[in-house]
Amino acid sequence: MTTPISFLSDFGHNDEFVGVVHGVIARIAPSIRVIDITHGIEHGDIHGGAMALTRAVQYMPDGVFLAVVDPGVGSDRRAVAVRTPVGYFVGPDNGVLAPAVAMVGGADLAVSLEDDRFRLPGKGLTFAGRDIFGPAAAVLASEQADILDLGPTIETESLTPFLIPLSEPTGEGSIHGTVLWIDTFGNIQFNISPEDLGQVDVSEGEDVSVSFEMQEFRISWSTTYGDVEEGEPVIHVDSYGQIALAVRGGRADEDFALSVGDSVVLGRTGGGKPIPLQITR
Amino acid sequence: MTTPISFLSDFGHNDEFVGVVHGVIARIAPSIRVIDITHGIEHGDIHGGAMALTRAVQYMPDGVFLAVVDPGVGSDRRAVAVRTPVGYFVGPDNGVLAPAVAMVGGADLAVSLEDDRFRLPGKGLTFAGRDIFGPAAAVLASEQADILDLGPTIETESLTPFLIPLSEPTGEGSIHGTVLWIDTFGNIQFNISPEDLGQVDVSEGEDVSVSFEMQEFRISWSTTYGDVEEGEPVIHVDSYGQIALAVRGGRADEDFALSVGDSVVLGRTGGGKPIPLQITR
Amino acid sequence: MTTPISFLSDFGHNDEFVGVVHGVIARIAPSIRVIDITHGIEHGDIHGGAMALTRAVQYMPDGVFLAVVDPGVGSDRRAVAVRTPVGYFVGPDNGVLAPAVAMVGGADLAVSLEDDRFRLPGKGLTFAGRDIFGPAAAVLASEQADILDLGPTIETESLTPFLIPLSEPTGEGSIHGTVLWIDTFGNIQFNISPEDLGQVDVSEGEDVSVSFEMQEFRISWSTTYGDVEEGEPVIHVDSYGQIALAVRGGRADEDFALSVGDSVVLGRTGGGKPIPLQITR
Repeated sequence: MTTPISFLSDFGHNDEFVGVVHGVIARIAPSIRVIDITHGIEHGDIHGGAMALTRAVQYMPDGVFLAVVDPGVGSDRRAVAVRTPVGYFVGPDNGVLAPAVAMVGGADLAVSLEDDRFRLPGKGLTFAGRDIFGPAAAVLASEQADILDLGPTIETESLTPFLIPLSEPTGEGSIHGTVLWIDTFGNIQFNISPEDLGQVDVSEGEDVSVSFEMQEFRISWSTTYGDVEEGEPVIHVDSYGQIALAVRGGRADEDFALSVGDSVVLGRTGGGKPIPLQITR
Repeated sequence: MTTPISFLSDFGHNDEFVGVVHGVIARIAPSIRVIDITHGIEHGDIHGGAMALTRAVQYMPDGVFLAVVDPGVGSDRRAVAVRTPVGYFVGPDNGVLAPAVAMVGGADLAVSLEDDRFRLPGKGLTFAGRDIFGPAAAVLASEQADILDLGPTIETESLTPFLIPLSEPTGEGSIHGTVLWIDTFGNIQFNISPEDLGQVDVSEGEDVSVSFEMQEFRISWSTTYGDVEEGEPVIHVDSYGQIALAVRGGRADEDFALSVGDSVVLGRTGGGKPIPLQITR
Repeated sequence: MTTPISFLSDFGHNDEFVGVVHGVIARIAPSIRVIDITHGIEHGDIHGGAMALTRAVQYMPDGVFLAVVDPGVGSDRRAVAVRTPVGYFVGPDNGVLAPAVAMVGGADLAVSLEDDRFRLPGKGLTFAGRDIFGPAAAVLASEQADILDLGPTIETESLTPFLIPLSEPTGEGSIHGTVLWIDTFGNIQFNISPEDLGQVDVSEGEDVSVSFEMQEFRISWSTTYGDVEEGEPVIHVDSYGQIALAVRGGRADEDFALSVGDSVVLGRTGGGKPIPLQITR
């Protein structure tokens, strides 16, 4: 059994970029399997790439994680490989690897991918996924080289961090948070956990006040979509354990004008009269 | 040789959903190959998923068929595995599996995927592809469990059917049918076979009357696109054996305002003067 | 170790076409690996498919190259397999294979894929990727047949060529060229090499005059994006060794109104006063 490479990028599927990286890996290490996590990260969206890798990493087999979201290609950002308890992470040192590395237990060793023996000779500007990251992932997965062969070690503390915004209590029975992710089905995930809501005395089965941009919505916190009617919004704990906003049979991102990074306040509903649902359709 | 899993979903490629299901399968059954049929089914489009699976199934290797188009996730629809002559079908019991199962010979055994030993422990709302269907497909393909281990048997007659609309003669030398599929090239497939047209005395080489919404078009029924000029419409038997409408070098879905599910009437052309082609471009 | 198939098409990911070709190959040759180069070529875009295959081929493992961009399906274009120093190329004889075949050293043998033993029996119009090209690739990769078994040999000189437009000096210190490719990040590649610019005395580090449609831009020729400010355009040698136009942290295709096939003139900047950058944003 060989070690698989789990591969994430913002390359999309219009060009041959993903295929060429697969090809480079197959030439170096023909028996290594490459599992595509996704290549649909928005171009240059380090946040989106880091979050997707973090959500995925616990479900992927141990091995090599190759993540290329690299808006700084052609600048002096470092190309790195880091060692973790679940295997190696390979990519640009711009933060895209950081939260996933932290989630799996942190890095105990990191190198800068500078050894030319493990880079393809470039013709001009580097296509780093093809020329640097793909080859490094291939030799690590196939054990053709030790991580220390790939370049000089660097301090793991010097790796670019990635700060996931933290939620915090407002002191008035609510939590201030942000939108972490909007998935392809339109569901909106917050950086707020069920425990966070519990600390302000909101529990499953109750209504939750969801406020942003001078609007407040009262939305039922339910275990399943089935508890609300078709087309109705629902607060739930999503499959990653985070508080999320969905619309049964619909798209929350279309019904609520929220984007990744937007601020929200979640908490107890007011004592006054219920605020009518104001959905912009 | 191990048994492959053929995997279809509406997950798209923007998020890591497809990759995570691959990861879950690889962790459970590292040597099992997963072949992606498509993940481009429109979100929640059970009809589209069922039709694509049905078209594909006869060309895929025997093994496990994993099909996740699941707008009812979080409701009480059952998660099922069914046994057929070509292998196992795994997915939600909402009809998405039904026509493909029927095409390959029907199910002789079905279970409800309820045994927690073969489900990933969920944190909140279930991501059923990752937590239920992927693991079930992995253990079936790798023979780590018998289908009967996965949960209680259910009556195969209780499985949710999927009714492909039937065409029917109008009694006036024509067939009433519907649009089954519009492919990515813009070709329009009807639920009408060449035999159906033969029964109303229309044969290849003749013109066919195609009517919908108060419009009638006379279109040549040709064996190959090459029989008509660039930009001209053509009725043909498509590569799945169904009557279809295409435009040589163009897109029939743009030239004719038809959508999946629309009603059409195909038949002999009238005895009167030819009706001019009314194409909205 | 078996021979992989590298597969490129314009099938997209909305339908099951790519998956079905994988399925057909897996049924014929279960142990053969298929690497997807890309299936995002614009529908029927032979130029785009030929260019992507040519860029990719040197990075893919030796084996079988299956390329299906086939706007002439249903006409009398030939279906071919050709033998080259790196393996077999299989696809329609419409030029899509030609520049890649030339790049790897040319074809010494070609056959027309006519032997019914290696075609799937079609029901109507042929889905050539599924019924002809996929099976041919599968039997070649798995050595179940010799290329000569697949059909009658044809003269390699009779294969449809593909003419990559050549750049040429204008005689006034500049080069007339065309846009070869615009990638998913918006970078614009020309059919002009650094050597071409060298012949008109323009070198890296200098400004380059980029003219099209009565506009002239003076753009710095830099080694890396890092040499220019965010949002500024840059001429560079791209990762395929060609002269290309990019915008650091942005999209050149949005800042400059250029499309594939457009004419451009690159050369020395005029002796007069610098022409201000006229970017339409």
